[in-house]
Amino acid sequence: MKHVYEGKTKTVFELENGNYLLKFKDDVTGTDGVFDPGANTVGLSIEGMGKGGLRLTTYFFEMLQKNGIKTHYVKSDIENNNMEVLPAAPFGNGIEVICRFKAVGSFMRRYGQYAKEGQDLNAFVEVTLKDDERGDPPITKDALSVLGILTNEEYESLKEQTQEICKMIKAELAKYDCELYDIKLEFGRNKGEVILIDEISGGNMRVYKNGKTVAPLELVKIVLGN
Amino acid sequence: MKHVYEGKTKTVFELENGNYLLKFKDDVTGTDGVFDPGANTVGLSIEGMGKGGLRLTTYFFEMLQKNGIKTHYVKSDIENNNMEVLPAAPFGNGIEVICRFKAVGSFMRRYGQYAKEGQDLNAFVEVTLKDDERGDPPITKDALSVLGILTNEEYESLKEQTQEICKMIKAELAKYDCELYDIKLEFGRNKGEVILIDEISGGNMRVYKNGKTVAPLELVKIVLGN
Repeated sequence: MKHVYEGKTKTVFELENGNYLLKFKDDVTGTDGVFDPGANTVGLSIEGMGKGGLRLTTYFFEMLQKNGIKTHYVKSDIENNNMEVLPAAPFGNGIEVICRFKAVGSFMRRYGQYAKEGQDLNAFVEVTLKDDERGDPPITKDALSVLGILTNEEYESLKEQTQEICKMIKAELAKYDCELYDIKLEFGRNKGEVILIDEISGGNMRVYKNGKTVAPLELVKIVLGN
Repeated sequence: MKHVYEGKTKTVFELENGNYLLKFKDDVTGTDGVFDPGANTVGLSIEGMGKGGLRLTTYFFEMLQKNGIKTHYVKSDIENNNMEVLPAAPFGNGIEVICRFKAVGSFMRRYGQYAKEGQDLNAFVEVTLKDDERGDPPITKDALSVLGILTNEEYESLKEQTQEICKMIKAELAKYDCELYDIKLEFGRNKGEVILIDEISGGNMRVYKNGKTVAPLELVKIVLGN
Protein backbone atom coordinates (compact mmCIF):
# COMPACT_ATOMS: atom_id res chain seq x y z
CA MET A 1 0.00 0.00 0.00
CA LYS A 2 1.06 3.57 -0.77
CA HIS A 3 1.24 6.55 1.64
CA VAL A 4 -0.78 9.34 0.01
CA TYR A 5 -1.59 11.95 2.69
CA GLU A 6 -0.54 12.93 6.19
CA GLY A 7 -3.53 14.59 7.92
CA LYS A 8 -3.72 16.25 11.33
CA THR A 9 -5.35 13.25 13.00
CA LYS A 10 -5.09 10.50 10.33
CA THR A 11 -2.63 9.05 7.83
CA VAL A 12 -4.05 7.95 4.47
CA PHE A 13 -2.81 4.99 2.37
CA GLU A 14 -4.01 3.78 -1.03
CA LEU A 15 -4.82 0.06 -1.26
CA GLU A 16 -4.37 -2.15 -4.31
CA ASN A 17 -8.12 -2.83 -4.57
CA GLY A 18 -8.75 0.88 -5.20
CA ASN A 19 -9.97 1.60 -1.67
CA TYR A 20 -8.13 3.64 0.97
CA LEU A 21 -6.85 2.88 4.45
CA LEU A 22 -7.19 5.51 7.20
CA LYS A 23 -4.77 5.07 10.10
CA PHE A 24 -6.08 6.89 13.19
CA LYS A 25 -3.42 8.82 15.13
CA ASP A 26 -3.36 9.81 18.81
CA ASP A 27 -3.30 13.53 17.89
CA VAL A 28 -6.38 15.73 18.41
CA THR A 29 -7.18 19.27 17.30
CA GLY A 30 -7.06 22.06 19.86
CA THR A 31 -5.33 25.24 20.92
CA ASP A 32 -2.67 25.59 23.62
CA GLY A 33 -3.07 22.01 24.82
CA VAL A 34 -6.87 22.25 25.21
CA PHE A 35 -9.11 20.02 23.08
CA ASP A 36 -11.34 21.99 20.67
CA PRO A 37 -13.14 20.12 17.85
CA GLY A 38 -13.45 23.43 15.97
CA ALA A 39 -9.72 24.22 15.97
CA ASN A 40 -7.56 23.62 12.92
CA THR A 41 -4.27 22.96 14.68
CA VAL A 42 -3.10 19.87 16.49
CA GLY A 43 -3.32 20.83 20.13
CA LEU A 44 -2.28 17.72 21.98
CA SER A 45 -1.69 13.99 21.76
CA ILE A 46 -3.71 11.62 23.96
CA GLU A 47 -2.68 7.95 24.33
CA GLY A 48 -5.39 5.63 23.05
CA MET A 49 -7.12 8.46 21.17
CA GLY A 50 -6.61 6.88 17.74
CA LYS A 51 -8.01 3.50 18.74
CA GLY A 52 -10.86 5.10 20.71
CA GLY A 53 -11.80 7.33 17.77
CA LEU A 54 -11.71 4.37 15.41
CA ARG A 55 -13.92 2.23 17.69
CA LEU A 56 -16.53 4.98 17.99
CA THR A 57 -16.37 5.78 14.26
CA THR A 58 -16.89 2.09 13.45
CA TYR A 59 -19.83 1.95 15.85
CA PHE A 60 -21.53 5.03 14.37
CA PHE A 61 -20.84 4.20 10.70
CA GLU A 62 -22.27 0.69 11.17
CA MET A 63 -25.33 2.18 12.91
CA LEU A 64 -25.83 4.70 10.06
CA GLN A 65 -25.43 2.06 7.35
CA LYS A 66 -28.08 -0.11 9.08
CA ASN A 67 -30.34 2.97 8.87
CA GLY A 68 -29.82 3.38 5.14
CA ILE A 69 -27.19 6.15 5.11
CA LYS A 70 -24.47 5.76 2.48
CA THR A 71 -20.95 6.22 3.85
CA HIS A 72 -17.40 5.50 2.73
CA TYR A 73 -17.01 2.82 5.46
CA VAL A 74 -15.98 -0.70 4.34
CA LYS A 75 -14.47 -2.35 7.46
CA SER A 76 -12.25 -1.67 10.43
CA ASP A 77 -9.16 -3.37 11.87
CA ILE A 78 -9.31 -2.05 15.44
CA GLU A 79 -6.12 -3.89 16.50
CA ASN A 80 -4.07 -1.94 13.97
CA ASN A 81 -5.95 1.39 14.19
CA ASN A 82 -7.05 1.11 10.54
CA MET A 83 -10.30 1.66 8.68
CA GLU A 84 -10.79 0.68 5.02
CA VAL A 85 -12.92 3.15 3.06
CA LEU A 86 -14.26 3.69 -0.46
CA PRO A 87 -12.55 6.29 -2.64
CA ALA A 88 -14.29 9.69 -2.49
CA ALA A 89 -13.28 12.98 -4.09
CA PRO A 90 -13.38 16.01 -1.80
CA PHE A 91 -15.36 19.14 -2.68
CA GLY A 92 -12.76 21.68 -3.77
CA ASN A 93 -9.80 21.36 -1.40
CA GLY A 94 -12.13 20.13 1.34
CA ILE A 95 -15.11 21.52 3.20
CA GLU A 96 -16.47 20.86 6.67
CA VAL A 97 -20.16 20.62 7.50
CA ILE A 98 -21.22 21.61 10.99
CA CYS A 99 -24.59 20.70 12.49
CA ARG A 100 -25.51 22.70 15.57
CA PHE A 101 -28.12 21.84 18.20
CA LYS A 102 -26.89 24.40 20.75
CA ALA A 103 -25.10 27.74 20.27
CA VAL A 104 -21.47 27.44 21.43
CA GLY A 105 -17.92 27.86 20.08
CA SER A 106 -17.36 29.64 16.76
CA PHE A 107 -21.11 30.26 16.34
CA MET A 108 -21.03 32.41 19.50
CA ARG A 109 -17.81 34.13 18.41
CA ARG A 110 -19.47 35.16 15.14
CA TYR A 111 -23.08 35.71 16.18
CA GLY A 112 -22.83 36.54 19.88
CA GLN A 113 -24.62 39.85 19.19
CA TYR A 114 -27.83 37.84 18.69
CA ALA A 115 -27.32 34.31 20.06
CA LYS A 116 -27.40 33.31 23.72
CA GLU A 117 -24.79 30.75 24.86
CA GLY A 118 -26.43 27.33 24.74
CA GLN A 119 -29.63 28.39 22.94
CA ASP A 120 -31.39 25.84 20.72
CA LEU A 121 -30.33 25.95 17.06
CA ASN A 122 -32.57 23.13 15.85
CA ALA A 123 -30.03 21.16 13.70
CA PHE A 124 -28.77 24.32 11.98
CA VAL A 125 -26.24 23.43 9.25
CA GLU A 126 -23.28 25.53 8.13
CA VAL A 127 -20.33 24.90 5.84
CA THR A 128 -16.75 26.10 6.27
CA LEU A 129 -13.81 25.86 3.89
CA LYS A 130 -10.76 23.89 4.99
CA ASP A 131 -8.28 26.74 4.78
CA ASP A 132 -5.87 27.06 7.71
CA GLU A 133 -4.37 30.28 6.32
CA ARG A 134 -7.75 32.06 6.23
CA GLY A 135 -9.11 30.52 9.48
CA ASP A 136 -11.60 28.10 7.86
CA PRO A 137 -14.05 30.78 6.65
CA PRO A 138 -17.79 29.99 6.67
CA ILE A 139 -19.34 29.98 3.20
CA THR A 140 -22.89 30.20 1.86
CA LYS A 141 -24.72 27.93 -0.58
CA ASP A 142 -24.54 30.69 -3.22
CA ALA A 143 -20.79 31.23 -2.75
CA LEU A 144 -20.12 27.46 -2.95
CA SER A 145 -22.03 27.47 -6.23
CA VAL A 146 -20.39 30.55 -7.79
CA LEU A 147 -16.93 29.19 -6.93
CA GLY A 148 -17.74 25.79 -8.47
CA ILE A 149 -17.22 23.90 -5.19
CA LEU A 150 -20.76 22.48 -4.79
CA THR A 151 -23.80 22.62 -7.05
CA ASN A 152 -27.08 23.79 -5.48
CA GLU A 153 -28.39 20.21 -5.75
CA GLU A 154 -25.31 18.81 -3.99
CA TYR A 155 -25.67 21.45 -1.26
CA GLU A 156 -29.28 20.46 -0.62
CA SER A 157 -28.38 16.75 -0.52
CA LEU A 158 -25.54 17.46 1.88
CA LYS A 159 -27.70 19.60 4.16
CA GLU A 160 -30.53 17.08 4.24
CA GLN A 161 -28.18 14.14 4.91
CA THR A 162 -26.37 16.12 7.61
CA GLN A 163 -29.59 16.81 9.52
CA GLU A 164 -30.75 13.20 9.18
CA ILE A 165 -27.38 11.74 10.27
CA CYS A 166 -26.88 14.15 13.16
CA LYS A 167 -30.37 13.58 14.54
CA MET A 168 -29.62 9.82 14.57
CA ILE A 169 -26.34 10.39 16.39
CA LYS A 170 -28.02 12.77 18.84
CA ALA A 171 -30.73 10.17 19.57
CA GLU A 172 -28.11 7.43 20.05
CA LEU A 173 -26.11 9.58 22.49
CA ALA A 174 -29.28 10.46 24.39
CA LYS A 175 -29.57 6.76 25.33
CA TYR A 176 -26.43 7.31 27.44
CA ASP A 177 -27.76 10.59 28.92
CA CYS A 178 -25.37 12.49 26.69
CA GLU A 179 -26.45 15.63 24.84
CA LEU A 180 -24.99 16.49 21.43
CA TYR A 181 -24.30 20.24 21.15
CA ASP A 182 -22.59 20.33 17.75
CA ILE A 183 -20.78 18.03 15.36
CA LYS A 184 -18.57 18.34 12.28
CA LEU A 185 -19.03 16.00 9.32
CA GLU A 186 -17.25 15.62 6.01
CA PHE A 187 -18.68 14.53 2.71
CA GLY A 188 -17.22 13.52 -0.64
CA ARG A 189 -18.27 12.47 -4.13
CA ASN A 190 -18.37 8.72 -4.87
CA LYS A 191 -19.76 7.56 -8.22
CA GLY A 192 -21.73 10.78 -8.66
CA GLU A 193 -23.27 10.67 -5.18
CA VAL A 194 -22.63 12.79 -2.09
CA ILE A 195 -21.61 10.38 0.71
CA LEU A 196 -20.46 10.74 4.31
CA ILE A 197 -16.68 10.32 4.73
CA ASP A 198 -13.98 10.90 7.41
CA GLU A 199 -14.83 9.89 11.00
CA ILE A 200 -17.51 10.26 13.68
CA SER A 201 -16.00 10.33 17.14
CA GLY A 202 -15.54 12.48 20.21
CA GLY A 203 -12.81 14.34 18.30
CA ASN A 204 -15.29 16.12 16.06
CA MET A 205 -18.27 16.76 18.30
CA ARG A 206 -19.17 18.59 21.51
CA VAL A 207 -21.08 16.38 23.95
CA TYR A 208 -22.40 17.30 27.40
CA LYS A 209 -23.41 14.99 30.27
CA ASN A 210 -24.79 16.33 33.56
CA GLY A 211 -23.92 19.86 32.45
CA LYS A 212 -20.24 19.06 31.77
CA THR A 213 -18.37 18.50 28.51
CA VAL A 214 -17.50 14.88 27.79
CA ALA A 215 -13.86 14.42 26.68
CA PRO A 216 -13.30 12.26 23.56
CA LEU A 217 -11.97 9.19 25.40
CA GLU A 218 -14.64 9.50 28.08
CA LEU A 219 -17.25 9.27 25.31
CA VAL A 220 -15.71 5.99 24.11
CA LYS A 221 -16.07 4.59 27.63
CA ILE A 222 -19.64 5.83 28.03
CA VAL A 223 -20.84 4.43 24.69
CA LEU A 224 -18.66 1.31 24.28
CA GLY A 225 -17.50 0.53 27.84
CA ASN A 226 -13.84 0.80 28.94
CA MET B 1 -37.11 67.76 14.64
CA LYS B 2 -35.35 65.44 17.04
CA HIS B 3 -31.79 64.08 16.80
CA VAL B 4 -32.09 60.27 17.06
CA TYR B 5 -28.86 58.71 15.80
CA GLU B 6 -25.29 59.68 14.94
CA GLY B 7 -23.99 57.29 12.23
CA LYS B 8 -20.52 57.06 10.69
CA THR B 9 -21.48 58.96 7.56
CA LYS B 10 -24.98 60.34 8.37
CA THR B 11 -26.90 62.00 11.19
CA VAL B 12 -30.55 60.96 11.63
CA PHE B 13 -33.40 63.21 12.81
CA GLU B 14 -37.06 62.36 13.39
CA LEU B 15 -39.59 64.65 11.72
CA GLU B 16 -43.00 65.63 13.05
CA ASN B 17 -44.80 63.94 10.12
CA GLY B 18 -43.39 60.54 11.19
CA ASN B 19 -40.70 60.48 8.51
CA TYR B 20 -36.94 60.81 9.09
CA LEU B 21 -34.31 63.24 7.86
CA LEU B 22 -30.86 61.96 6.91
CA LYS B 23 -28.11 64.59 6.99
CA PHE B 24 -25.16 63.49 4.84
CA LYS B 25 -21.72 64.13 6.41
CA ASP B 26 -18.34 64.60 4.72
CA ASP B 27 -16.94 61.49 6.47
CA VAL B 28 -16.30 58.27 4.53
CA THR B 29 -15.41 54.75 5.68
CA GLY B 30 -11.86 53.54 5.23
CA THR B 31 -8.69 52.42 6.94
CA ASP B 32 -5.58 54.53 7.58
CA GLY B 33 -6.83 57.41 5.46
CA VAL B 34 -7.61 55.22 2.43
CA PHE B 35 -11.23 54.97 1.21
CA ASP B 36 -12.68 51.42 1.49
CA PRO B 37 -16.45 50.93 1.11
CA GLY B 38 -16.12 47.61 2.98
CA ALA B 39 -14.46 49.13 6.08
CA ASN B 40 -16.42 49.80 9.25
CA THR B 41 -14.38 52.72 10.55
CA VAL B 42 -14.38 56.33 9.43
CA GLY B 43 -11.13 56.63 7.50
CA LEU B 44 -11.14 60.20 6.28
CA SER B 45 -13.20 63.30 5.68
CA ILE B 46 -13.53 64.71 2.16
CA GLU B 47 -14.98 68.19 1.57
CA GLY B 48 -18.13 68.03 -0.55
CA MET B 49 -18.51 64.28 0.10
CA GLY B 50 -21.86 64.66 1.90
CA LYS B 51 -23.46 66.76 -0.82
CA GLY B 52 -21.97 64.58 -3.59
CA GLY B 53 -23.27 61.41 -1.93
CA LEU B 54 -26.72 62.95 -1.51
CA ARG B 55 -26.88 64.10 -5.16
CA LEU B 56 -25.95 60.64 -6.44
CA THR B 57 -28.28 58.91 -3.97
CA THR B 58 -31.14 61.16 -5.09
CA TYR B 59 -30.35 60.40 -8.72
CA PHE B 60 -30.29 56.62 -8.20
CA PHE B 61 -33.32 56.44 -5.89
CA GLU B 62 -35.41 58.47 -8.38
CA MET B 63 -34.23 56.20 -11.21
CA LEU B 64 -35.14 53.08 -9.19
CA GLN B 65 -38.56 54.44 -8.22
CA LYS B 66 -39.31 55.15 -11.90
CA ASN B 67 -38.49 51.47 -12.53
CA GLY B 68 -40.94 50.24 -9.91
CA ILE B 69 -38.54 49.59 -7.00
CA LYS B 70 -39.89 50.55 -3.58
CA THR B 71 -37.45 52.62 -1.51
CA HIS B 72 -37.56 54.80 1.60
CA TYR B 73 -36.86 57.94 -0.49
CA VAL B 74 -39.33 60.83 -0.19
CA LYS B 75 -37.42 63.94 -1.32
CA SER B 76 -34.05 65.65 -1.06
CA ASP B 77 -32.91 69.13 -0.06
CA ILE B 78 -29.50 69.19 -1.75
CA GLU B 79 -28.71 72.72 -0.51
CA ASN B 80 -28.87 71.58 3.13
CA ASN B 81 -27.44 68.05 2.62
CA ASN B 82 -30.73 66.45 3.74
CA MET B 83 -32.89 63.62 2.48
CA GLU B 84 -36.38 62.89 3.83
CA VAL B 85 -37.19 59.19 4.09
CA LEU B 86 -39.99 56.88 5.22
CA PRO B 87 -39.64 55.15 8.58
CA ALA B 88 -38.20 51.65 8.25
CA ALA B 89 -37.24 49.17 10.97
CA PRO B 90 -33.83 47.55 10.57
CA PHE B 91 -33.39 43.76 10.55
CA GLY B 92 -31.98 42.93 13.98
CA ASN B 93 -29.40 45.60 14.79
CA GLY B 94 -28.75 46.13 11.09
CA ILE B 95 -27.50 44.00 8.21
CA GLU B 96 -25.66 44.88 5.02
CA VAL B 97 -26.35 43.26 1.68
CA ILE B 98 -23.48 43.04 -0.77
CA CYS B 99 -23.93 42.33 -4.47
CA ARG B 100 -20.75 41.28 -6.26
CA PHE B 101 -20.09 41.35 -9.99
CA LYS B 102 -16.30 40.89 -9.68
CA ALA B 103 -14.23 39.18 -6.97
CA VAL B 104 -12.33 41.82 -4.94
CA GLY B 105 -11.98 43.03 -1.35
CA SER B 106 -13.33 40.91 1.51
CA PHE B 107 -14.52 38.23 -0.92
CA MET B 108 -10.87 37.64 -1.94
CA ARG B 109 -9.70 37.77 1.68
CA ARG B 110 -12.14 35.01 2.59
CA TYR B 111 -12.24 32.89 -0.57
CA GLY B 112 -8.85 33.58 -2.18
CA GLN B 113 -8.12 29.84 -2.09
CA TYR B 114 -10.67 29.43 -4.90
CA ALA B 115 -11.43 32.85 -6.42
CA LYS B 116 -9.23 34.75 -8.85
CA GLU B 117 -8.93 38.52 -8.33
CA GLY B 118 -11.47 40.19 -10.62
CA GLN B 119 -13.28 37.01 -11.71
CA ASP B 120 -16.97 37.27 -12.62
CA LEU B 121 -19.37 36.59 -9.73
CA ASN B 122 -22.60 37.10 -11.67
CA ALA B 123 -24.50 39.33 -9.16
CA PHE B 124 -23.65 37.07 -6.21
CA VAL B 125 -25.41 38.29 -3.05
CA GLU B 126 -24.13 37.97 0.51
CA VAL B 127 -25.28 39.36 3.84
CA THR B 128 -23.13 40.58 6.73
CA LEU B 129 -24.13 41.64 10.22
CA LYS B 130 -23.41 45.21 11.31
CA ASP B 131 -21.16 44.34 14.24
CA ASP B 132 -17.97 46.39 14.55
CA GLU B 133 -16.76 44.32 17.50
CA ARG B 134 -16.91 41.06 15.52
CA GLY B 135 -15.73 42.53 12.20
CA ASP B 136 -19.11 42.46 10.41
CA PRO B 137 -19.35 38.65 10.08
CA PRO B 138 -20.98 37.17 6.96
CA ILE B 139 -24.13 35.18 7.72
CA THR B 140 -26.18 32.60 5.83
CA LYS B 141 -29.90 32.53 5.07
CA ASP B 142 -30.32 29.65 7.57
CA ALA B 143 -28.44 31.49 10.35
CA LEU B 144 -30.49 34.68 9.75
CA SER B 145 -33.61 32.54 10.13
CA VAL B 146 -32.53 30.60 13.25
CA LEU B 147 -31.53 33.86 14.96
CA GLY B 148 -34.86 35.50 14.12
CA ILE B 149 -33.26 38.30 12.08
CA LEU B 150 -34.89 37.55 8.69
CA THR B 151 -37.52 34.99 7.68
CA ASN B 152 -36.73 32.78 4.68
CA GLU B 153 -39.36 34.68 2.66
CA GLU B 154 -37.81 38.04 3.58
CA TYR B 155 -34.35 36.71 2.63
CA GLU B 156 -35.58 35.65 -0.80
CA SER B 157 -37.30 39.02 -1.36
CA LEU B 158 -34.14 40.85 -0.30
CA LYS B 159 -31.89 38.73 -2.54
CA GLU B 160 -34.18 39.11 -5.57
CA GLN B 161 -34.56 42.89 -5.09
CA THR B 162 -30.80 43.26 -4.58
CA GLN B 163 -29.99 41.55 -7.87
CA GLU B 164 -32.64 43.55 -9.74
CA ILE B 165 -31.54 46.89 -8.24
CA CYS B 166 -27.82 46.27 -8.69
CA LYS B 167 -28.22 45.21 -12.31
CA MET B 168 -30.07 48.51 -12.97
CA ILE B 169 -27.29 50.51 -11.29
CA LYS B 170 -24.63 48.54 -13.19
CA ALA B 171 -26.41 49.24 -16.49
CA GLU B 172 -26.74 52.95 -15.64
CA LEU B 173 -23.03 53.23 -14.79
CA ALA B 174 -22.10 51.40 -17.98
CA LYS B 175 -23.56 54.36 -19.93
CA TYR B 176 -20.62 56.38 -18.53
CA ASP B 177 -18.08 53.61 -19.33
CA CYS B 178 -17.95 52.78 -15.64
CA GLU B 179 -17.94 49.18 -14.44
CA LEU B 180 -19.58 48.24 -11.14
CA TYR B 181 -17.47 45.64 -9.25
CA ASP B 182 -19.47 45.43 -6.03
CA ILE B 183 -22.00 47.43 -4.04
CA LYS B 184 -23.46 47.43 -0.54
CA LEU B 185 -27.18 48.01 0.02
CA GLU B 186 -29.34 48.21 3.12
CA PHE B 187 -32.95 47.17 3.53
CA GLY B 188 -35.58 47.67 6.21
CA ARG B 189 -39.17 46.76 7.01
CA ASN B 190 -41.87 49.32 6.14
CA LYS B 191 -45.52 48.34 6.59
CA GLY B 192 -44.68 44.64 6.37
CA GLU B 193 -42.60 45.00 3.22
CA VAL B 194 -38.85 44.74 2.64
CA ILE B 195 -37.73 48.05 1.08
CA LEU B 196 -34.42 49.60 0.06
CA ILE B 197 -33.10 52.17 2.57
CA ASP B 198 -29.86 54.10 3.32
CA GLU B 199 -27.97 55.56 0.34
CA ILE B 200 -26.59 54.66 -3.08
CA SER B 201 -23.42 56.57 -3.84
CA GLY B 202 -19.73 56.18 -4.51
CA GLY B 203 -19.24 55.65 -0.79
CA ASN B 204 -20.75 52.18 -0.85
CA MET B 205 -19.66 50.76 -4.17
CA ARG B 206 -16.48 49.91 -6.07
CA VAL B 207 -16.48 51.32 -9.58
CA TYR B 208 -13.75 51.01 -12.23
CA LYS B 209 -13.17 53.12 -15.33
CA ASN B 210 -10.38 52.40 -17.82
CA GLY B 211 -8.95 49.83 -15.39
CA LYS B 212 -8.72 52.29 -12.48
CA THR B 213 -10.93 52.69 -9.39
CA VAL B 214 -13.22 55.71 -9.47
CA ALA B 215 -13.15 57.73 -6.23
CA PRO B 216 -16.56 58.70 -4.75
CA LEU B 217 -16.45 62.39 -5.75
CA GLU B 218 -15.10 61.51 -9.20
CA LEU B 219 -18.18 59.34 -9.69
CA VAL B 220 -20.43 62.32 -8.90
CA LYS B 221 -18.65 64.33 -11.59
CA ILE B 222 -18.81 61.52 -14.14
CA VAL B 223 -22.54 60.84 -13.66
CA LEU B 224 -23.89 64.30 -12.76
CA GLY B 225 -21.24 66.69 -14.11
CA ASN B 226 -19.07 68.87 -11.79
